[in-house]
Amino acid sequence: MHAVPWLDGGSIDPSASAQVRDLRRVPIHPDHWYPLAWSSEVRRGRALGVLFAGEPIVLARTESGTLFALEDRCAHRQVPLHAGVVEGDCIRCGYHGWTYDSTGRCVNVPYLGRERLPNGVRAYPCREVHGLIFVFPGDVALANARPLPALPSVANKAYKTRRFGRVVKCHYSFMHENLMDMNHQFLHRRQMGQMRARARGRRRGEGWLEVDYTFARKGKQPVGEALVFGASSKNGDQDDQDVMTVRTEYPYQTLQIRSGDGTLVMDLWIVYVPLDAAQRTNRTFGLLSIRRPGIPLALDLAWPLLVWFTERIFKEDRWIVELEQEAHDKQGADWNHEVFPVINELRDLLRNCGGRTVIALRKAGDTA
Amino acid sequence: MHAVPWLDGGSIDPSASAQVRDLRRVPIHPDHWYPLAWSSEVRRGRALGVLFAGEPIVLARTESGTLFALEDRCAHRQVPLHAGVVEGDCIRCGYHGWTYDSTGRCVNVPYLGRERLPNGVRAYPCREVHGLIFVFPGDVALANARPLPALPSVANKAYKTRRFGRVVKCHYSFMHENLMDMNHQFLHRRQMGQMRARARGRRRGEGWLEVDYTFARKGKQPVGEALVFGASSKNGDQDDQDVMTVRTEYPYQTLQIRSGDGTLVMDLWIVYVPLDAAQRTNRTFGLLSIRRPGIPLALDLAWPLLVWFTERIFKEDRWIVELEQEAHDKQGADWNHEVFPVINELRDLLRNCGGRTVIALRKAGDTA
Amino acid sequence: MHAVPWLDGGSIDPSASAQVRDLRRVPIHPDHWYPLAWSSEVRRGRALGVLFAGEPIVLARTESGTLFALEDRCAHRQVPLHAGVVEGDCIRCGYHGWTYDSTGRCVNVPYLGRERLPNGVRAYPCREVHGLIFVFPGDVALANARPLPALPSVANKAYKTRRFGRVVKCHYSFMHENLMDMNHQFLHRRQMGQMRARARGRRRGEGWLEVDYTFARKGKQPVGEALVFGASSKNGDQDDQDVMTVRTEYPYQTLQIRSGDGTLVMDLWIVYVPLDAAQRTNRTFGLLSIRRPGIPLALDLAWPLLVWFTERIFKEDRWIVELEQEAHDKQGADWNHEVFPVINELRDLLRNCGGRTVIALRKAGDTA
Repeated sequence: MHAVPWLDGGSIDPSASAQVRDLRRVPIHPDHWYPLAWSSEVRRGRALGVLFAGEPIVLARTESGTLFALEDRCAHRQVPLHAGVVEGDCIRCGYHGWTYDSTGRCVNVPYLGRERLPNGVRAYPCREVHGLIFVFPGDVALANARPLPALPSVANKAYKTRRFGRVVKCHYSFMHENLMDMNHQFLHRRQMGQMRARARGRRRGEGWLEVDYTFARKGKQPVGEALVFGASSKNGDQDDQDVMTVRTEYPYQTLQIRSGDGTLVMDLWIVYVPLDAAQRTNRTFGLLSIRRPGIPLALDLAWPLLVWFTERIFKEDRWIVELEQEAHDKQGADWNHEVFPVINELRDLLRNCGGRTVIALRKAGDTA
Repeated sequence: MHAVPWLDGGSIDPSASAQVRDLRRVPIHPDHWYPLAWSSEVRRGRALGVLFAGEPIVLARTESGTLFALEDRCAHRQVPLHAGVVEGDCIRCGYHGWTYDSTGRCVNVPYLGRERLPNGVRAYPCREVHGLIFVFPGDVALANARPLPALPSVANKAYKTRRFGRVVKCHYSFMHENLMDMNHQFLHRRQMGQMRARARGRRRGEGWLEVDYTFARKGKQPVGEALVFGASSKNGDQDDQDVMTVRTEYPYQTLQIRSGDGTLVMDLWIVYVPLDAAQRTNRTFGLLSIRRPGIPLALDLAWPLLVWFTERIFKEDRWIVELEQEAHDKQGADWNHEVFPVINELRDLLRNCGGRTVIALRKAGDTA
Repeated sequence: MHAVPWLDGGSIDPSASAQVRDLRRVPIHPDHWYPLAWSSEVRRGRALGVLFAGEPIVLARTESGTLFALEDRCAHRQVPLHAGVVEGDCIRCGYHGWTYDSTGRCVNVPYLGRERLPNGVRAYPCREVHGLIFVFPGDVALANARPLPALPSVANKAYKTRRFGRVVKCHYSFMHENLMDMNHQFLHRRQMGQMRARARGRRRGEGWLEVDYTFARKGKQPVGEALVFGASSKNGDQDDQDVMTVRTEYPYQTLQIRSGDGTLVMDLWIVYVPLDAAQRTNRTFGLLSIRRPGIPLALDLAWPLLVWFTERIFKEDRWIVELEQEAHDKQGADWNHEVFPVINELRDLLRNCGGRTVIALRKAGDTA
């Protein structure tokens, strides 16, 4: 056992941190673009009901292909609009047929005169990029100024990208901490073998934080890992030349691996979208881009293995973060006793960038 | 789009209605006769546990056929009496054998002297009509004066009656509003085709409210509907001659269709009995009487289709009212934005006729 | 019906008892040895997560066979240690690899220097007897002085012992009352036939209470019962010579049957261990010892029948006590109306011996 030199002794003071806001109750900040569905989930002429932190949102695609996002409840009797019908450029409630256009305006109540039409429902800015449907759930006035994530590797033909995701029953903060603390390789010992992560340095700025890691292997490298990440040149307790950088750029997270010559060989972009109002459940959207090797088709052939490998890893991560959430629910407070400075900084970042209060449901018509 | 002339503009004021009692929290009034089971559910020598607004009630039928209704818990250890045994004219708790007669008096504790018998349990007035077991859960002194529903078509051989029902997870008020607002034909567009309801007039009195509708068809009449209700003589956007009257006579509801010559061709009687204390779930009991046509057996042959048709309609209604209840639960208040005056009057009626407070559980022995 | 002479009239006063502490909310007292698992559930090199009144405890057995019990959550991120790995004499958290020895001390954090190791987790006294793993969840200082239960019949070759148990969804007090009140034979009428219990006398002391019963049969003895307990010499309404003694010696319970000549023919030891913090669920551990008859192998041959018979009885008991708990949950208070003095005394005993307040979760590290 050896001391890791860059651990700063002063940052660990659980009694002081007990006074601060419980991170697991900090809502995600709504003034960002969040993917709420894959493009393929919303077919032409159909609607899909999704959730952002308890807010019901309907994504509708017209027959001509236009996409729009509205509050997912009829102003009349509050039933979800996604249970209705997409008709022309509008969506029609399935109960009494009230009709809304893509801006949320009520344009028809079959049994009421046009001059007496009620208020409509809220509309959300909505954009589609790289197979993801992004919605801006916060202050509409800020939407245009706020950039969508860039995702350069996804657009680059030198990379092959896997889209993946699923629902995980925990607060989004557990997900950020899981990925950023590479000391959790022990969790993946069956896939990864005995590896030790070494944190090599960290940087931070306004709204972001990143840390570099190298890895030392103890014992033999498993075949699966070698196929996915390439065989490591050395064995024994020597560090590999690859550098992994994990970055939280609020609210997104990336994990990039660069080889010794600086080539970006793996580029993961991931975000955890809270589903329920209490933000105890998130839907994860991930884009994992792998640089194609020199040999044509090699990556395509190895793809099923990569899928299997990442699914296994993700399954273990999900299992452990859900156990963390369960413990928090039972204990009613954040009892974590963090000793790793990167994670303590990450927690501060998530606290500072998070929303002020839990997002309240808005009464239909208030914003129309 | 056309203005419906009889809409009164003054009645729609959501800001004012925000002050009134939340209709979805108004308990049903207990001083009425409610069916709690079908006669066939309580066989001779057996007992059945049922619920009225969270109150457990046991219906027991002796071997000789007498029916009685008691509080469904033993005065001793509170276990349900329906888990016990009907013996002679009594019911015996299945745990330690305490025995109660049909008035709820404790007549035997096997290990205790008769002179020391404890108090018994509450008995409920109970009557059996047309295959339904009615119980009076309110003030016993009022039971005899309060009439049972008449149900003349059920007793009339000119009609064939279908008994139906199921559990619906919503407050009873959503059911009343669903049936009374015939503008919800849009919900049943797959069964009914494109129809438009026109409200033709409404009447009200002490404890009741009714509205007449005629229907205009747009496009072709589906075969199923034609078989059940008869082929409509005209097509196109012309009103049919049939008049439908929907009536809430607290706490029951009826829907009657009369042909152009005034013949009652369909007569539905329905009631929604709350099961749980919060009254978020109801058991529906319905009697649907259809006048037999001139041709013998025609109705019997069409019966399976009618069953299928009404089941489909009912399934859609259940689906939508449960979505309404879910929305209310999530929003914690009644955000409905009603524009149809009939429904606003119906809501007032249900509020005014409803119970004062949620029915409290009575401690065993308090009323004996 | 006849008066049972030794019933004392003065003890039944529900209005007075309404003032006392609700027995169903009295936590079990932690200063006793409780079995938390069967020995066979914790194999070498493995760990098992168990619960005592909501407190998570991990039982770990090293490859060399040593057993230890720790608080079942890592001091770091609160995930259960039972999800980790037993390594040497230690247990290692499955997430970041923090390692604890059998006293709960944290002896390794792979990425931290030894001089900076954090506090560990709580350790529990732990002993293994007769195939049961006992843990002392209360004040550690009292553990050595407090005896483990003796269980002489289990160790005696003249008896054959059946180990049984399962989870029952009720407060432990319902279990004690169920077994001690033999007037509940009516519940087991299908297995036992028509029997009447007669309470023959009761004794009590500090922390214990016991009552003797004899049984009178009405009608024919079922074959199953005869095989298990022996054919009763007489039929008709005459008392059998066997005496059954039911004893609560807090927190354990025993039921012993002695034949006319004083031989102990059946010896049951049983305990109900609360699993959840609200103590609405318990895990029952039972040891049922039957004296081997003169004929070799007779008991072994009859064993499957005995298993079937006791399972049936236990199933009925579980069913009824869970109904009692459901009634209590619904009523929110103890409405029981007890008339049997033994049970009223038992309730006082359980109240007096019970814990003071609900056991609070301890924050990791508080006790290390």
